[in-house]
Amino acid sequence: MSIILDEIHRVVGDGGLLRGSDVSSRPTSWVDPTPNTAMAIIRPTSTEQLSRVMKICHRHDQVVIPVGGGTGLVNAVCASSDQLLISLERMKSIENIDSAGCTMTVEAGVPLQTIQEVAAENSLLFPIDFGARGSAQVGGAVATNAGGNEVLRYGMMREQVLGLEAVLADGTVISSMNRMLKNNAGYDLKQLFIGSEGTLGIVTRVVLRLRSALASKSTALVAVDEFGKIPTLLKTLGSALGGTLNSYEVLWHSYYKLITDAHPDRALPLANEYPFYILVESCGADQVSDKARFEAVLESAFESELIIDAAIAQSEKQSAEMWAIRDDIETLLQQMVPLVGFDISIPIQDLDKYVGIVRDKLEEKWPGDARIVTFGHLGDSNIHLVISVGPDTPAREKTVMDIVYQQVSRFDGSVSAEHGIGLDKVDYLHHSRSEDEIALMKTLKNALDPKGILSPGRVFQL
Amino acid sequence: MSIILDEIHRVVGDGGLLRGSDVSSRPTSWVDPTPNTAMAIIRPTSTEQLSRVMKICHRHDQVVIPVGGGTGLVNAVCASSDQLLISLERMKSIENIDSAGCTMTVEAGVPLQTIQEVAAENSLLFPIDFGARGSAQVGGAVATNAGGNEVLRYGMMREQVLGLEAVLADGTVISSMNRMLKNNAGYDLKQLFIGSEGTLGIVTRVVLRLRSALASKSTALVAVDEFGKIPTLLKTLGSALGGTLNSYEVLWHSYYKLITDAHPDRALPLANEYPFYILVESCGADQVSDKARFEAVLESAFESELIIDAAIAQSEKQSAEMWAIRDDIETLLQQMVPLVGFDISIPIQDLDKYVGIVRDKLEEKWPGDARIVTFGHLGDSNIHLVISVGPDTPAREKTVMDIVYQQVSRFDGSVSAEHGIGLDKVDYLHHSRSEDEIALMKTLKNALDPKGILSPGRVFQL
Repeated sequence: MSIILDEIHRVVGDGGLLRGSDVSSRPTSWVDPTPNTAMAIIRPTSTEQLSRVMKICHRHDQVVIPVGGGTGLVNAVCASSDQLLISLERMKSIENIDSAGCTMTVEAGVPLQTIQEVAAENSLLFPIDFGARGSAQVGGAVATNAGGNEVLRYGMMREQVLGLEAVLADGTVISSMNRMLKNNAGYDLKQLFIGSEGTLGIVTRVVLRLRSALASKSTALVAVDEFGKIPTLLKTLGSALGGTLNSYEVLWHSYYKLITDAHPDRALPLANEYPFYILVESCGADQVSDKARFEAVLESAFESELIIDAAIAQSEKQSAEMWAIRDDIETLLQQMVPLVGFDISIPIQDLDKYVGIVRDKLEEKWPGDARIVTFGHLGDSNIHLVISVGPDTPAREKTVMDIVYQQVSRFDGSVSAEHGIGLDKVDYLHHSRSEDEIALMKTLKNALDPKGILSPGRVFQL
Repeated sequence: MSIILDEIHRVVGDGGLLRGSDVSSRPTSWVDPTPNTAMAIIRPTSTEQLSRVMKICHRHDQVVIPVGGGTGLVNAVCASSDQLLISLERMKSIENIDSAGCTMTVEAGVPLQTIQEVAAENSLLFPIDFGARGSAQVGGAVATNAGGNEVLRYGMMREQVLGLEAVLADGTVISSMNRMLKNNAGYDLKQLFIGSEGTLGIVTRVVLRLRSALASKSTALVAVDEFGKIPTLLKTLGSALGGTLNSYEVLWHSYYKLITDAHPDRALPLANEYPFYILVESCGADQVSDKARFEAVLESAFESELIIDAAIAQSEKQSAEMWAIRDDIETLLQQMVPLVGFDISIPIQDLDKYVGIVRDKLEEKWPGDARIVTFGHLGDSNIHLVISVGPDTPAREKTVMDIVYQQVSRFDGSVSAEHGIGLDKVDYLHHSRSEDEIALMKTLKNALDPKGILSPGRVFQL
């Protein structure tokens, strides 16, 4: 064993240091099944252990890559044979539930789903949710500022974090375990570690804000004939539902048709002939009166021609069927293979214009080959694009990315709405951020990690 | 004119450079009426002008203090005769209202009240509100991360900022004018400038998130007999009102009695005999059905003995009368003079225990002299304490502060919930933040402003 691994072994013991086949038997990540190539995987059981590990690594200029559940989509957790992975999978205590103060204090390795379940057992709600909930760890969700389907109402992960603890590159422990909604005592240091993808510190513990559990849920799939009505409807529902709108997911016709055509056996909530479909969900206190209001509001939207058709879920089963269309990524990936996927933001009113320009440019470049499918969290300005330009898509990927991101830049959008930058989008960050902004990011990186040992190459190249 | 003022004059012109009586005729701040002692007040009309001014100041190691409306309460904007004040009072354009995307883009000098009004004209809501709304400028509200009465529902200023532009100490312009709810493209740089009180940069422009305007409002003043029921009631209302609870302001008996006794002519919503009063407000979509639900929820709370009395406002006038009790700071200041005021946070369930210990310690120190009045945004863990320990209060202020803040530390609270640190609380920051946290704040300060020319001495001493 090398000197450095020997030193680390003395801190974390046998269970804390995986090598050889214990490493290579793990996949690199969810999206990359190739054997993990890290020198070792370090698994501390406490912040104090991690601090000692980082002091050793810092002394040896040893690069470390923190990894959570490995469910990210921007290739952030791969490690080469001279790099160490740091996993907090053994730090999975729920340290405290403060039911009165509506907070939960957890170690970074707790899976998101566990947090949701424990909150629900205490008649509270943890509102961040996405498909990988069973594997994604809260530390990773904080480090990447994860989003999901209810950002419109509750905000992203950033808004759910009251306090956190992080270990810096040199082993210093920054413990900012605030448990209160308001705290203006000096700089809000936690913001540094949220969404910086492990490049400024490793999040070890988190104080989460919990919300009131809501007893009612009303779901509908509505159809709209012109894109221009979509932001108007969003604003109308925001007011008419009294601020209880949870989700506003838009499916372009391309998406709805592709998914429903692939499953002719499934019930079709609405005919697949409309230009746009919107999955609308509102949560409140009383199922009967809330649903009556929800129906009245949609009725009124129909009368004023904001919507041209609507199916209102009459049961949890029907609601789940509507969500199944929205969330049927598996069918999408099957139907579009080979594909290039995107997670971008564009100011809402420009979204369809943006999609049209990208479609035209792809069609111009590869006549007859280009297919573009669009859907996503439109209420948050966030859409996912899935593009296929024929069997040669993999070879054409770079050109597709250039087209997509150049137009993002033109519309003042973001090359990453919720997935982050990782290694995959480093070359495209400049489409959304200025030279001065990127220089300031590097200033922060140099101030906190001057040796560049924490997740180097992620977000930007130094 | 000195060399430096001469250089600055060439950038900003006559109207951009106030000296002599134009400076001294201004008060230092709202709470300090003494003549302003700054060397000069610089009033750029654009970000580009401010950038050039800062380049000059940086070259000359010239200290500058950015000032907004001067309505802060922690003595952050005083300047000595060798320091320059930077005021963005001439930068007050509303550059854009994006009614579809629910954003407003403004220059930093726009008063908060103007933003509220323009939002309302567009059927939208800007939810940050406090007494100084007519004078407070949005740039200052961002720099201090201002709070107010609806943080429980909408968050603090930090949560209303989608993007911003700031000028660094060396004149570099960081323009992060994001207009989207989701943007994970690299570090979220705007967080650096929110709540750092002008020590890391000067905010020049802001993109604000606007919310749905809500048509209904239900207000009640309720009485509770035991503190332990207050967090329970908060949680109950959160669920039973479907997440539409805007305000949860608690008045200890000491506060309610003091204010209502001073105004025997005014209507008394509830007898002044109860231990705790809570001002509850919920906003939604439909006045008739929302009010019916609001009443039913309070009725149910009464039946389950969470509350022992309640007055529900039957008109806007009655609602305003309830708020007038909550907001009657003028009477409070008159009745308690001389006084020491505090703005602290403590985890909710410990708040009354905290207040009791502070009361006991004051009483022990100054038997018969100590009076403590407590009220505030309890839903946010934030209370304001007003303390008088007899005619010698000014001489005893330091001791009072020590008692209050030592107990804040014991309960893991914050020495500043919403007012910030400024110069006034620098000596107490360590009660809420660790040495390592303060060291990291200084690391950031040194990285962004190595010469220490931006608001030196605020937040911490370098």
